[in-house]
Amino acid sequence: MSNRSWKGRVFIATSLDGFIARPDSDILWLTDPSPRPPSQQHVPPTSPDKRTVDSIEQNMQRIDCIAMGRKTYEKIASFGDWPYTKRTFVISSTLPLSGMELPPSVQVVRSVDEAAELFEREHMKLVYVDGGLLIQEFLRRGWVDEMVVTHAPVLLGHGIPLFGDLQRDVELRLLGVDVIEDGMISTWYQVVH
Amino acid sequence: MSNRSWKGRVFIATSLDGFIARPDSDILWLTDPSPRPPSQQHVPPTSPDKRTVDSIEQNMQRIDCIAMGRKTYEKIASFGDWPYTKRTFVISSTLPLSGMELPPSVQVVRSVDEAAELFEREHMKLVYVDGGLLIQEFLRRGWVDEMVVTHAPVLLGHGIPLFGDLQRDVELRLLGVDVIEDGMISTWYQVVH
Repeated sequence: MSNRSWKGRVFIATSLDGFIARPDSDILWLTDPSPRPPSQQHVPPTSPDKRTVDSIEQNMQRIDCIAMGRKTYEKIASFGDWPYTKRTFVISSTLPLSGMELPPSVQVVRSVDEAAELFEREHMKLVYVDGGLLIQEFLRRGWVDEMVVTHAPVLLGHGIPLFGDLQRDVELRLLGVDVIEDGMISTWYQVVH
Repeated sequence: MSNRSWKGRVFIATSLDGFIARPDSDILWLTDPSPRPPSQQHVPPTSPDKRTVDSIEQNMQRIDCIAMGRKTYEKIASFGDWPYTKRTFVISSTLPLSGMELPPSVQVVRSVDEAAELFEREHMKLVYVDGGLLIQEFLRRGWVDEMVVTHAPVLLGHGIPLFGDLQRDVELRLLGVDVIEDGMISTWYQVVH
């Protein structure tokens, strides 16, 4: 697919050592961290009117649909009410295509190729790619065009890695960086194709 | 060693996916990267008078000595003239303790415990810890007190990792962040003990 009509966007938080979740998929270290002692030298958060990097809300407004790995889907679904209104394509070779109760905006597809055909057919412009393995697969295929990576100020030592093997370097261009809260650094990169 | 008289400092550059060198120790991707196309949105470097994070020169002025892994020593020594005047302790169980031509400021020690005893005896205050495995060992022992980590805007996919396994989380406090050049982001963390 040399002439994609859509762009892929990664928007994800990671520990400083590159894990998006603990080995058991726990993300409480991110969503409910232990309080950090204050520091007089602490860099204050970027004020909202000076942000150069999208917030979670801005990201959701900007995208047309979500491509999601199966594990990420099951994790989010386990929290109860489905939080997204944007169309979501869950890429899984094992989930049943019908007979399973899915949120109305969610559809199972069998492969990333099938997903990519759908993005074309449905005239998607910006696809939010979520889930460690799926992000790695999209990166290997050259289907990620921009990345917003937020680093939490913690080393976990183990877990589900954000990045994986690549056939060749992926060069990035820095578009913006903000300190958003509590020592989290949010960085916006464009992928150089 | 519950009452260290010295502090450990990491000052290192890494790819965005956490590698300090390619598998063959190559760091040309860092020191001599391919030119990046300009971007109108590119965040300009932090001006020197507004920097919150130490430069390489400031780091070298601040430290009292260097603790270095054997592979890092051999890599730097292979470049020719030894660049550091600060005392350097190369931690190696295999290098000969004498009979080897070493730069005058360099001394081989057999273990990190031996190195730590030397730091105490010699009244070192700030020790610069260099080399992937050595940084990981100091982190596991709780001997790293601050880290300046510079992220280069590239994914390598493979290489020598900066971080490794930990017995427990290492919480960090953000002290500063700068865009230093060419899309490199330099971040200063204090380790919360």
